[in-house]
Amino acid sequence: MRIAVDAMGGDFAPREVIEGAILAQTQLNVDIALVGDRDILANYLKQHNYQESDRLEIVPSEGIIEMDDEPLEGLRRKPNSSIAVAMNLVKRKQADAVVSAGHSGAAMAAALLRLGRLPGVDRPAIGALFPTQVAHKPVLLLDVGANVDCRPKFLEQFAIMGSLYSKYAIGIQEPKVGLLNIGEEACKGNELAIRVHQALQDNPQITFAGNAEGRDILKGQFDVIVCDGFAGNIVLKFAEGVGNAVMQILKEELPKGWRGKLGALILKPNLKKVKERIDADEYGGALLLGVAGICVISHGSSNAISIRNAIRVAKDAVDHGVLDRIRGQIKPKVSIPADDTPDDPPT
Amino acid sequence: MRIAVDAMGGDFAPREVIEGAILAQTQLNVDIALVGDRDILANYLKQHNYQESDRLEIVPSEGIIEMDDEPLEGLRRKPNSSIAVAMNLVKRKQADAVVSAGHSGAAMAAALLRLGRLPGVDRPAIGALFPTQVAHKPVLLLDVGANVDCRPKFLEQFAIMGSLYSKYAIGIQEPKVGLLNIGEEACKGNELAIRVHQALQDNPQITFAGNAEGRDILKGQFDVIVCDGFAGNIVLKFAEGVGNAVMQILKEELPKGWRGKLGALILKPNLKKVKERIDADEYGGALLLGVAGICVISHGSSNAISIRNAIRVAKDAVDHGVLDRIRGQIKPKVSIPADDTPDDPPT
Repeated sequence: MRIAVDAMGGDFAPREVIEGAILAQTQLNVDIALVGDRDILANYLKQHNYQESDRLEIVPSEGIIEMDDEPLEGLRRKPNSSIAVAMNLVKRKQADAVVSAGHSGAAMAAALLRLGRLPGVDRPAIGALFPTQVAHKPVLLLDVGANVDCRPKFLEQFAIMGSLYSKYAIGIQEPKVGLLNIGEEACKGNELAIRVHQALQDNPQITFAGNAEGRDILKGQFDVIVCDGFAGNIVLKFAEGVGNAVMQILKEELPKGWRGKLGALILKPNLKKVKERIDADEYGGALLLGVAGICVISHGSSNAISIRNAIRVAKDAVDHGVLDRIRGQIKPKVSIPADDTPDDPPT
Repeated sequence: MRIAVDAMGGDFAPREVIEGAILAQTQLNVDIALVGDRDILANYLKQHNYQESDRLEIVPSEGIIEMDDEPLEGLRRKPNSSIAVAMNLVKRKQADAVVSAGHSGAAMAAALLRLGRLPGVDRPAIGALFPTQVAHKPVLLLDVGANVDCRPKFLEQFAIMGSLYSKYAIGIQEPKVGLLNIGEEACKGNELAIRVHQALQDNPQITFAGNAEGRDILKGQFDVIVCDGFAGNIVLKFAEGVGNAVMQILKEELPKGWRGKLGALILKPNLKKVKERIDADEYGGALLLGVAGICVISHGSSNAISIRNAIRVAKDAVDHGVLDRIRGQIKPKVSIPADDTPDDPPT
């Protein structure tokens, strides 16, 4: 298996991306195509005594899509940018998956342009895995940012794709799907949520377990939770913010006083374990579901650990043939009658 | 000052509500009208050697609005329910504020029916205070659940009301207002967010500090963050869930092994401080902004501490004349041109 890694994307690229890719290469036994500026990457490898090889190959690209670039326009202007070249490797079957910590909108746009959508899928979604209170039982939240204004059938498709991912990549026999909402009852929520609730209830392809309130996300009783990309992105980033705030509070309060200093010292290994369970870096990247290729988006501030974990998510998806599992499962006809609103053009 | 407390509302009513009210009465120096079933309340007071007095008076009510009651219908069927009677006390100026941990929809409906809206306010909002990474610098998020489908002018009004609350009740000279959104740029977000961004930028009554992403909520650089009640409610309940999950993880991981047990014992006082800073119970209830009275809604699982803190929020709002500060500040004409969508009837 060979993973194309966008070595230029992310706040700490290329350093952390390269280090993460090398971790993944040795620990996860995958081949890596490091896509980026040849000179910069070769220099880094040389300085750190890494050897370029068949298993860790530099694939040259030119330029990157900056965070303030408009995705489509950026891709048009920079057709050989790192994310575009990485995506091309998958298109040409020279790689099995792409991992990027760069501009997520650009990654989504590049995936749509180069790989296209799976048949029947109206809108691909970004799915993020969250740790829950129950150890080793993550929940997949989607969409976390690809589609801000959603129609009911989009969320219905997210539910099907999420279920298949949960079943085949994570190994949950019968994934329980929740609808992110502000109350348990079917009548609760905004217009979108009320309509989606009904649709999910009627859909035979999934196991609908009802509405999931904000407080239920991390409880571990849902395997998949669907929402529009606006709510999902806010939850994703809020979770990141809370993780940071909690670690900050622990750092401030625990070592206070002599008891604190002593106690914190003794507890160091256990605190490390707490950090691992809370820290966003420990949970792999977000997966693009619905495009005709495996693409994992890691957050912008990814360090080496995040990159390795994002590569692991990509590897798992490839290993379990997630694409083939989803392909053909999204029927053009869904159980929701056509909206009266016109279909907006695909982005 | 006299606060009407809905003694029958909440998962742990009346016990925790009464205990919280008594805490408030002694610690915050307020008079309490305990509204509820006279027999139940009198019995509880007697059993626990509390004295009914002018400062802690039972005001009898009949029945409660249950969580599965539809608010308006419930209030019609039970006009003497605890929340209705409590609201009447404020209406008749026999109390300065209401605090309830019961059905929040019913509290909102009772406030609208009994007290009405402040002039110019289209939709009252529920504002919740969140602790931030910066000690003693809370942020007010609104709306957290009263209005699931919002029009731009609602959020503009939330921003004005939130600013005035932040200024007068919390004492922030020039409150920085953020718009909850999924990116920093003005062009980011769903249709609602894009329109509200423009409106807030143009509004001279507030200091607009731009979009606030999920990760910014707890950073402490915003004093007020506005959003629709759907996103806000999800954030509110997710925060609650995260707090619980973090405390759960700390409880599981810290005392592991002999080092853990020893360290956790030594760190006990500091861990208590951590809990206080993370725990939702430590932060007062949510305030109804835009109704013609002070009403504070505490979460359903409120314990005595939460109730006391909710009463403190109510007291602060009364002390600082928040109502009079807001009254007259919401102009019927706002800077946003009329929507083409028809105005839905007030809920």
